[in-house]
Amino acid sequence: MSDNATRAAVVERATRLSREKLALRAADYDRAAVNPVESWRDLHAEGLLATTVPMGHGGLGLDMPTYVAVIRTLAQGCANTAMTVHMHSTVMRFIDALGTEAQKRRYFPEVVRSGRLFGSWGSEPAVSLSRTFLMETVVHDEPDAWVVDGIKYFCTMALGAAHYMVWCALDGGTDMTKSLLPVLVPADAEGISTDSKWDTLGMRATFSPTVRLSRVRAPRDSALGDPGAALRVGVVEVFSLGYAAIYVGIAEGSLAFALDYAKKRVVRPENIPVAHDPTVQRHVGELSVHLDAARLVLDQAAARWDTADLTDKAMLANKAKYLATEVGLLVTSKVIQLVGGRGAYKDYPAERAFRDLRTSTLMPPTMDRMLEAIGKTALGIETGMFNVSGEPPRA
Amino acid sequence: MSDNATRAAVVERATRLSREKLALRAADYDRAAVNPVESWRDLHAEGLLATTVPMGHGGLGLDMPTYVAVIRTLAQGCANTAMTVHMHSTVMRFIDALGTEAQKRRYFPEVVRSGRLFGSWGSEPAVSLSRTFLMETVVHDEPDAWVVDGIKYFCTMALGAAHYMVWCALDGGTDMTKSLLPVLVPADAEGISTDSKWDTLGMRATFSPTVRLSRVRAPRDSALGDPGAALRVGVVEVFSLGYAAIYVGIAEGSLAFALDYAKKRVVRPENIPVAHDPTVQRHVGELSVHLDAARLVLDQAAARWDTADLTDKAMLANKAKYLATEVGLLVTSKVIQLVGGRGAYKDYPAERAFRDLRTSTLMPPTMDRMLEAIGKTALGIETGMFNVSGEPPRA
Amino acid sequence: MSDNATRAAVVERATRLSREKLALRAADYDRAAVNPVESWRDLHAEGLLATTVPMGHGGLGLDMPTYVAVIRTLAQGCANTAMTVHMHSTVMRFIDALGTEAQKRRYFPEVVRSGRLFGSWGSEPAVSLSRTFLMETVVHDEPDAWVVDGIKYFCTMALGAAHYMVWCALDGGTDMTKSLLPVLVPADAEGISTDSKWDTLGMRATFSPTVRLSRVRAPRDSALGDPGAALRVGVVEVFSLGYAAIYVGIAEGSLAFALDYAKKRVVRPENIPVAHDPTVQRHVGELSVHLDAARLVLDQAAARWDTADLTDKAMLANKAKYLATEVGLLVTSKVIQLVGGRGAYKDYPAERAFRDLRTSTLMPPTMDRMLEAIGKTALGIETGMFNVSGEPPRA
Amino acid sequence: MSDNATRAAVVERATRLSREKLALRAADYDRAAVNPVESWRDLHAEGLLATTVPMGHGGLGLDMPTYVAVIRTLAQGCANTAMTVHMHSTVMRFIDALGTEAQKRRYFPEVVRSGRLFGSWGSEPAVSLSRTFLMETVVHDEPDAWVVDGIKYFCTMALGAAHYMVWCALDGGTDMTKSLLPVLVPADAEGISTDSKWDTLGMRATFSPTVRLSRVRAPRDSALGDPGAALRVGVVEVFSLGYAAIYVGIAEGSLAFALDYAKKRVVRPENIPVAHDPTVQRHVGELSVHLDAARLVLDQAAARWDTADLTDKAMLANKAKYLATEVGLLVTSKVIQLVGGRGAYKDYPAERAFRDLRTSTLMPPTMDRMLEAIGKTALGIETGMFNVSGEPPRA
Repeated sequence: MSDNATRAAVVERATRLSREKLALRAADYDRAAVNPVESWRDLHAEGLLATTVPMGHGGLGLDMPTYVAVIRTLAQGCANTAMTVHMHSTVMRFIDALGTEAQKRRYFPEVVRSGRLFGSWGSEPAVSLSRTFLMETVVHDEPDAWVVDGIKYFCTMALGAAHYMVWCALDGGTDMTKSLLPVLVPADAEGISTDSKWDTLGMRATFSPTVRLSRVRAPRDSALGDPGAALRVGVVEVFSLGYAAIYVGIAEGSLAFALDYAKKRVVRPENIPVAHDPTVQRHVGELSVHLDAARLVLDQAAARWDTADLTDKAMLANKAKYLATEVGLLVTSKVIQLVGGRGAYKDYPAERAFRDLRTSTLMPPTMDRMLEAIGKTALGIETGMFNVSGEPPRA
Repeated sequence: MSDNATRAAVVERATRLSREKLALRAADYDRAAVNPVESWRDLHAEGLLATTVPMGHGGLGLDMPTYVAVIRTLAQGCANTAMTVHMHSTVMRFIDALGTEAQKRRYFPEVVRSGRLFGSWGSEPAVSLSRTFLMETVVHDEPDAWVVDGIKYFCTMALGAAHYMVWCALDGGTDMTKSLLPVLVPADAEGISTDSKWDTLGMRATFSPTVRLSRVRAPRDSALGDPGAALRVGVVEVFSLGYAAIYVGIAEGSLAFALDYAKKRVVRPENIPVAHDPTVQRHVGELSVHLDAARLVLDQAAARWDTADLTDKAMLANKAKYLATEVGLLVTSKVIQLVGGRGAYKDYPAERAFRDLRTSTLMPPTMDRMLEAIGKTALGIETGMFNVSGEPPRA
Repeated sequence: MSDNATRAAVVERATRLSREKLALRAADYDRAAVNPVESWRDLHAEGLLATTVPMGHGGLGLDMPTYVAVIRTLAQGCANTAMTVHMHSTVMRFIDALGTEAQKRRYFPEVVRSGRLFGSWGSEPAVSLSRTFLMETVVHDEPDAWVVDGIKYFCTMALGAAHYMVWCALDGGTDMTKSLLPVLVPADAEGISTDSKWDTLGMRATFSPTVRLSRVRAPRDSALGDPGAALRVGVVEVFSLGYAAIYVGIAEGSLAFALDYAKKRVVRPENIPVAHDPTVQRHVGELSVHLDAARLVLDQAAARWDTADLTDKAMLANKAKYLATEVGLLVTSKVIQLVGGRGAYKDYPAERAFRDLRTSTLMPPTMDRMLEAIGKTALGIETGMFNVSGEPPRA
Repeated sequence: MSDNATRAAVVERATRLSREKLALRAADYDRAAVNPVESWRDLHAEGLLATTVPMGHGGLGLDMPTYVAVIRTLAQGCANTAMTVHMHSTVMRFIDALGTEAQKRRYFPEVVRSGRLFGSWGSEPAVSLSRTFLMETVVHDEPDAWVVDGIKYFCTMALGAAHYMVWCALDGGTDMTKSLLPVLVPADAEGISTDSKWDTLGMRATFSPTVRLSRVRAPRDSALGDPGAALRVGVVEVFSLGYAAIYVGIAEGSLAFALDYAKKRVVRPENIPVAHDPTVQRHVGELSVHLDAARLVLDQAAARWDTADLTDKAMLANKAKYLATEVGLLVTSKVIQLVGGRGAYKDYPAERAFRDLRTSTLMPPTMDRMLEAIGKTALGIETGMFNVSGEPPRA
């Protein structure tokens, strides 16, 4: 990314794609609850599956503000596409930060040339990440393979991606600072099984069923970095920043619909558009201000990202995600109220935005954990994105 | 309803039915988006389709507090069943208040003996009731029939009820105080057509498609009361009171699920139920207090109903509906947050409560209209439930 | 208190006094920051300093709903008078619950006949009661006296009452379940000293400076009950219930002023009262609904008080106090906004209500502790009003 | 202002002054309710009374982002000084935008050299500016003087400034687009009288009593611009932008105090600072995020100011002021809650921030008017800062 013009062109391309392609398919993918494969294909054609692959490896190597703008604009059209692409792009960041040169040469071309997707599976049945960051899925360091055993929940892009970055604990260690090890498991490895059940309120096209991994063998070169290193490279924090971009994008798409509706919907006997109703104007005003605020906090986080240390990255991401959650919930609920009874129709995008927002904001860290971490930083008490198992309690 | 014991027995019966029957079918009806016919049948078997039919006509003739308690408890199990039964029961109130003795003898037995349902169709495409209460559907007084022409939106229980109380304007008059005339149109009358489309965020089993009425002939004895009278008998206000009961019931059902979940869900490595997490306790505390408040405002409205005049009924219903909306939105959204990622699963009732609440609270009057009306009353400025077309503006 | 008519008469008397006397002096007491001595005298003349003294001892022996109604109506006129009387009246409850017959015969007549006031001093510099209920003020059991040593903060009615119930730990014990001992220290005992500084945002006429007690000797019969017993008689919980009544009363007084102002204030060039502005009506509507809710939660707590056990009393009081705080803050701030620039004038009561509300709601337990306790109870986890030092942690 | 370094130096100078001088006097000025004369003098010594006087006339000619940063930092120390300086500085903008070269040569030196202050008096007893922008104070164009008659409310800096820009209607016209005329009335002109009463909740040192002007004669060169022109030069909108800076500054000062308090305040028996309490951390986190958002919306408004047209200026100022109001009310109230009982002490700045914020946010436009205007702009309906009397209604 050499200059502003190039950056703007990328965002513009994403915006056009979002409006002209992603938005038109979003309702169907939502209904069917399947991976947005066609939309991924369109993104690949425009190079947008490689936004976080370094330019030296054929990717766009976007800086953080441009990346966030792209994810946000994709979410305006289809939250599910934005979310899956964000998960995938963050795996690219891990490969870039932790991978050897050989690993980069092996994995990046799969994306740049072949348009393959990479998932990231972290959640587990018995653990709450906002409470304690701990992985119970075990990886064993065997002579000819990494062998993975465990159960993962919310396995986004299951059956759709080519590799899944599975968050494991080396030999079942419980001190994550020394044991956490992400392993890139090939989608066709033996021992991966899923009931393929994914029937949820929203984010239905992120297809995220439960997956069981039984003695799954991954190649020797599929583990990323030293044990524990994945928590120290400033990438874990990007997850939340991208979520914030998605929430803001969903809310923007929803409000845009409401504005359009209010201008066109004419009521009798007055025969004027509801846009001329002062109560409608006030609700629009309230949502506009808050959405502006959420976007500015997000943009500022992205702008300060590259020079921020781990603590600051956690704080910036938490602030962006916290406010985007609060504002996103407000906007997507009130837009339906503004539109009235028809706001609940599946023919309109408002109800999907409402469902997707409520669902996507459940991703960790929780609201309470975010506030606690932001507060600690403000009070000069050291903390990170998560309370990592094995780390001495800080405070 | 002679005494407290009898009243308590009715509520107890409804509660048992709600928990043991309605709740079990709610997810299926929601998915299929069809009228909850089996649940109606169970209610009929217990006499609960006739709660507002006078005792002299074989009904239960419940007082308002008991009625509200019944609707609320039904909504805890299935919001859709509660809503359809409430619409139906309110039509019974109109028949009781406006009908002749002959009409009562004709219509009540259809409910008491045969368990038939009555719908009420008021919404129209071009009118916003919270802005101006106006019906554009026309009824003509022809020698051998009432002839109805118009389009109705949100036609709850279409294809499921035996009669639809269609809100009309006599000869297309625009002064509702002189023209408003509800007509009981038989479900099998010729000229009723619908595309049967009803695909919405929530309240999917209230099956409420758009219906076109073209020269529909209703019998001579199917019009209720003098033109305009329907606005002056204190029944229009009951709609909102019942909505409030439904919102509170949905939220109660949702919170009960969350409590149960928090007690049972154990997280590692601490191996304690999330109920022991102080942040969970605080969220539960907040929702409990607000839900108590909404229920108390609702109960007080019901308790004061029978001695209230029209202005007071409007105020009581508005207060109950306003707070139930606000609290219901809060509770159903936060319960999902409390539960976390799994809160979005369709296997759990929380996501349905979230959708049903947001959808059902779109029924008029709007939040702004309610606040305006409550404020006017507090400020000593006369107002009613609606700004009725043709009425001199009051202030 | 034998019947409803008598109870209503007491409330009526308090209401008249509040409006005709207390309200007129409230601004002056606030400015001077002195005890509301004249208002106490008027209350004594009407028997209202003895609302919680049993009838057998010459008091009114009010039931809880009537007591709460009296405190609430006093707060409508003067929050400071209501607060001091509530503190005093709660000391009467402790004497009734813990005192020997001899103690009752000694202390009650001071109130019933002589109109003396009793204060209650619990706060201390280094302890946060919402975090840990612990008293560092020590009382020694010496042969001819109870000897008290310590520093108390927020000593309401200092220099104004005849006795101060000082919360002490027997011999400096730290297990409050075995050491907590309230001692009735005479106001004129030697060793009591204060800098008499009390300059605060609000509640200025509760005159509550810091007091140092150095080897203060109280008579042998001045300790109430066995050590630890004061936490087990269901009176500690009454503090919060009465605070809730005060918050609701302040907010009611404030809203009543706003209604009156909006009706009388006419703006040009339209020449209509601002009461006719729909935005004013909506704000009034919002405040009215929430105030109703807070009052109903308060009333329900009072109504269920006498049959509630300790856990329920804590929950009822917490719910009432939590909602009254939230609503009180909303109402007193928005009333100023409703009135506009003049809302800040000291000639009007709105700004004092705003200050008194914010100040009085700082009394423990904190919002967080209340929510936590309510949530615990809802989740079936045992808890009390406070986390008492020495008590085994209850989950 | 030639470069970034110079701009940063000005803000740095203001920050030092605010912390080392203004903050130390704020409590005394507040108590005495008098103009902050000493602080004005210090600001003059640093050139900060001339921030908006063009460089060509010896002022600093600050761009909008720097100006906003200066006002914000002053408000962190003393809201009253910030407010009076902002009013004064905005009068300078009017002279710059509307004045003749002769007027500029006459008035600017009074500020640049002599450090005199200029007030702006707009409010009137019978008009609500947020409803209708109308001046009833009349100015007559007499041969040798402009003669002013009327009553003004909230006359900030009365008895403290050298000139008052009095908002008048030429010959009592009611079409403000043709009649509005600001006149610079000398403080010592005959016919100005005031009862000097200014006893308010907060902003007490802006000393703003009611002033009566009876046949007050102002010099021939004291009227600014053509009648009506004052509404069309993009300066009226700056009032609100500066208010927003003040609200944000007050809230920042308040939160900074809370952070400091939480770090230093140690509670027993745990013997840890309350900063380590997770509930404290969460409240701090919430306030930090919202304060960031308010500051970013403010900064963005300032950054876009110079290239914005009238409609955009109104929208930018409204957004900044609306969010700063909402956030300021939240922060200043919650800081007191965070601190607890001592938060109400006058020895600490939190209670003054609470009073100043609630008072200063009463300045027009109202919250409702701001939201309405923002919503209109978002909906493509033309509107300005005010509904100007005489202007054709815009939608």
